[in-house]
Amino acid sequence: MAELRLDPITREWVNIATERGKRPSDFHHREEARLVRTRDHSRCPFCPGNEKMTGQDLLRYGTDRDWSLRVVRNKFPAFSGSGEAARTRYGLYESMPAVGAHEVIIETPYHNKSLSRLPVAQVKLVIQAYRERYLALQKNARLKYILIFRNHGKVAGASIEHAHSQIIATPVIPQVARARIEGLQRYDAERHACAYCDMIEQELDAGERLVVQNSSFVALAPYAARYPFETWILPKERNAQFVSVTELQMSDLAAILKETLLRLDLCLGDPPYNFMLLTTDFSDQFHWHIEIIPRLSIAAGFELGTAIYLNTVAPEQAATFLRAVNFPKQTAH
Amino acid sequence: MAELRLDPITREWVNIATERGKRPSDFHHREEARLVRTRDHSRCPFCPGNEKMTGQDLLRYGTDRDWSLRVVRNKFPAFSGSGEAARTRYGLYESMPAVGAHEVIIETPYHNKSLSRLPVAQVKLVIQAYRERYLALQKNARLKYILIFRNHGKVAGASIEHAHSQIIATPVIPQVARARIEGLQRYDAERHACAYCDMIEQELDAGERLVVQNSSFVALAPYAARYPFETWILPKERNAQFVSVTELQMSDLAAILKETLLRLDLCLGDPPYNFMLLTTDFSDQFHWHIEIIPRLSIAAGFELGTAIYLNTVAPEQAATFLRAVNFPKQTAH
Repeated sequence: MAELRLDPITREWVNIATERGKRPSDFHHREEARLVRTRDHSRCPFCPGNEKMTGQDLLRYGTDRDWSLRVVRNKFPAFSGSGEAARTRYGLYESMPAVGAHEVIIETPYHNKSLSRLPVAQVKLVIQAYRERYLALQKNARLKYILIFRNHGKVAGASIEHAHSQIIATPVIPQVARARIEGLQRYDAERHACAYCDMIEQELDAGERLVVQNSSFVALAPYAARYPFETWILPKERNAQFVSVTELQMSDLAAILKETLLRLDLCLGDPPYNFMLLTTDFSDQFHWHIEIIPRLSIAAGFELGTAIYLNTVAPEQAATFLRAVNFPKQTAH
Repeated sequence: MAELRLDPITREWVNIATERGKRPSDFHHREEARLVRTRDHSRCPFCPGNEKMTGQDLLRYGTDRDWSLRVVRNKFPAFSGSGEAARTRYGLYESMPAVGAHEVIIETPYHNKSLSRLPVAQVKLVIQAYRERYLALQKNARLKYILIFRNHGKVAGASIEHAHSQIIATPVIPQVARARIEGLQRYDAERHACAYCDMIEQELDAGERLVVQNSSFVALAPYAARYPFETWILPKERNAQFVSVTELQMSDLAAILKETLLRLDLCLGDPPYNFMLLTTDFSDQFHWHIEIIPRLSIAAGFELGTAIYLNTVAPEQAATFLRAVNFPKQTAH
């Protein structure tokens, strides 16, 4: 099992997962190591026919042999097991076992389909699977935080080409998650409002950073975007918890997520990206949303040292480019 | 001039530097874009003979035509100018001009020498230049924070191959810099000691994460290392400010910095890396040091969403590999 270790100064946790451990020589041929693991679909663990490579399904839409989506355990879990997350002291240090869960949502049986190119109905299945697995993991009281995320492209950390998202449940609340709540509380204390709600109102009014909207959601380039073409998707109606989404909202989310990813895809030539679905169990003071981060720039020494990001594309400019994307109507649905 | 923008929730600053601005098509051929800018030394702006490409020297060791080190302004500064950093409000947002400085330390006249392969005496000149420029920038009361850092290799964000470091001075104190001070204050309140001093004592005693030491400095793999082969170099004697280093300490720092980088170089096959020299002007409660981050892994969606890093190499293992490096004695000096 992996181990969580606490930095005694920053109080940030790290996960030391040596089961994935590597020797120095593994790092010598870095360029090749970053190639996507398989081009031979017959050996892709996420393709139909290879189900035995991934172990028991945690969730499946469809039948054993004719499925449209599956959720399985990650073969190299960063968090696993259901024991107690007891802390151990070692001089000035602290550690705990990295108990939790690490699951993979196989978004489609088709090897070559990326999320932006799937039909909206299939994207909605993906969102439904997020919700079902979130609710299942939420039942384990020892798990304190759940992150749904997606890595697309090798530069964004995807090691398998076949379209998939991931869910990780951790026994600790990440400091950044607490910091976001504190930021919202500070804003609320000053202005008696939700900062995300105010942001949506101001952005809909200004329009310059707006990418696209529908009746339930808005996609925008955030004012203080850290990365070129960073794009957020927020529900217009405030709710701390993603799992509160209604059937209708899931349809709207599927439509805007697909359209936003497709605009990024067409505008930037299928860029590598990560997205994170940020939600919370531990506070009502949140406004769940999705942050999409295209990986077009490199965080170098200045960013690592200061966490002040250098962004070479103004969000207003990025939004203008994304709004201007022309795509055949049939690719949108 | 670039613009600093404040995230209204996290209160993190970002730098929107559109002078370096790019169009979407610039991001299409990402792999080629990451190639180091020049292989033709005759066009390298940092090579002797091309001094006019970089503008006036801010510092030079040696003569106009026979120099051993130069400091120049960055041609595409992320921070520049000496005006007032007045804040502007725009609804719920805030911005300020990114006043400050962005300088480049050209570490050697030789195009193909990386820092780990320079003679210790030359590495000491680099450290002396850091100190001289830090002291010069420190005189501008409007600048609140100064970071010295180095990007090595294209994966670590280096756009020019010729060996160089950078110094950036900013009109704001980064939140992470404040957080480190707060962490040290919390530790001091609990244990009446400096956390870094306690760490050095515990690490010298345990030995398992020790890489190398000399009379003034220790190089170690931190217990909660975020990245494979992350290595820190700390002065044994506590001081908040790097610029307080003595002549003897600069010699010892040059020796241990060169040896540590050479061990990483030989162990991992010239890995891309960043290092940051962390110091402070605004608090006595610090212990300046250098953090070296080899760029062997990719921060993906989980890290971006939680800031909990997944590290596949235990620091004890990394230190063992780094201690075991054998190198011919003549490369060490």
